[in-house]
Amino acid sequence: MISSESNAQIKELVKLQKSARERRKKGLFVVEGIKLTKEAAAYGKLKKIYISEKMYSQSMDEEMGQLVRYGCEVVSDAVFRSISDTVTPQGVIGLAQIPVSSAEEIAEDERRSILLLDDLRDPGNLGTIIRTAEGAGMSGIILSRESVDVLNPKVVRATMGAIFRVPCFYAESLVEQIEALKEKDIPVYGTMMQGSRNYDSVDYTKGAGIVIGNEANGISKEVIGHLSGRVRIPMEGSLESLNAAVSAAILMYEIARQKRRR
Amino acid sequence: MISSESNAQIKELVKLQKSARERRKKGLFVVEGIKLTKEAAAYGKLKKIYISEKMYSQSMDEEMGQLVRYGCEVVSDAVFRSISDTVTPQGVIGLAQIPVSSAEEIAEDERRSILLLDDLRDPGNLGTIIRTAEGAGMSGIILSRESVDVLNPKVVRATMGAIFRVPCFYAESLVEQIEALKEKDIPVYGTMMQGSRNYDSVDYTKGAGIVIGNEANGISKEVIGHLSGRVRIPMEGSLESLNAAVSAAILMYEIARQKRRR
Repeated sequence: MISSESNAQIKELVKLQKSARERRKKGLFVVEGIKLTKEAAAYGKLKKIYISEKMYSQSMDEEMGQLVRYGCEVVSDAVFRSISDTVTPQGVIGLAQIPVSSAEEIAEDERRSILLLDDLRDPGNLGTIIRTAEGAGMSGIILSRESVDVLNPKVVRATMGAIFRVPCFYAESLVEQIEALKEKDIPVYGTMMQGSRNYDSVDYTKGAGIVIGNEANGISKEVIGHLSGRVRIPMEGSLESLNAAVSAAILMYEIARQKRRR
Repeated sequence: MISSESNAQIKELVKLQKSARERRKKGLFVVEGIKLTKEAAAYGKLKKIYISEKMYSQSMDEEMGQLVRYGCEVVSDAVFRSISDTVTPQGVIGLAQIPVSSAEEIAEDERRSILLLDDLRDPGNLGTIIRTAEGAGMSGIILSRESVDVLNPKVVRATMGAIFRVPCFYAESLVEQIEALKEKDIPVYGTMMQGSRNYDSVDYTKGAGIVIGNEANGISKEVIGHLSGRVRIPMEGSLESLNAAVSAAILMYEIARQKRRR
């Protein structure tokens, strides 16, 4: 049993929880909870599991028992709290390989529905967006480099497992990706207050890219210059804007609705 | 200047931040930040403001200066942190009167679009839902008693000011409210995985109530028995569910879309 925070594996897990750079360097990230650890195993990404002393002393179900074959370390409850990102840890942490997707894989998916995130910063928003993207049947998500890391523990938790199923790709240049989509006859629309058309007056059924901007500042000027069009979500009352994850959901489900109706 | 945490006003502010019971007892709640404090003033709900020493020493804009006439206390930076619910306080806190709405006000609104929340627990979800409800032009929100308090500081922040503009009402019995809506010829639909019809195949334009259930357990059995119908949001992939605030947004904006198209 590991009972010291200075254990090399523990120090590495703490680093992986905190640092996007460390995750990229090692190609690994941390998933918390039984559900997400099982998902990591189901997608062939699980490397090892860490179980709290308390969890180990309880009876495990069969599926949980199966996970032990990936290699399992028991960790004292006090040390386990130091590697957990949650307030009340479930007692199971998985070390998982980072799923790798390419821009081509996303752009060439036959559903031709791509979400682009321009400097999205809030981990909860990103996690919710990835989860909704799976439900709406999007091809994948292309993110600007400044956006929050999809493997941030708060993002991973909020995806509810969708992190293993929705291809995500960080673009060196979002503008280049937009131009590449347009060359494939996939128009790219920006969602913004100053949109010239209502979001539901555009036909997305032949393919569409949707850009969602930064929570405070919206879509960057550089990106706006390369859009095929600007769409707005009509708002009553005196709100300045909708939440970014809500805007993304409304657009993604409008695409799904149009495809079902086609 | 207030420089002690044992000051009576400070103790009361801390209580109001933490306790829903205290808020109900006093009819007061706390808003944080310049934007929300200005909103409270605009809606005639601001009682007093508290400004950090640091903020006081900076030059204030004219609008901020106007707020001082509501009565202003300067609070030492250390004590200010104890009354703030945020990690990086802006330095302005408002003491505000609770907006009061009735079930009748909501049910008799001419837009006839009501959101009902059955045991919704996450403050971030509730705040986002109130914000989206304003944008979508809903009549108001009726909440079950077990739902999280709309005046919880995290909810208030996430509403971005909509808390002063969207009527919210806590029902002794959600079932009674559903029956009251149905008597006014407003059908009430539950959003659930086991819905028999897609959410976009129902006509909401003559009036509709939409029930969103608990984040983990969905809509309670008792409430299900009183619904006019069950609708589902189609999901691809292998998700178990969508985020509650996302489901609410998709439904509320479908209602708004249908009304615009009518």
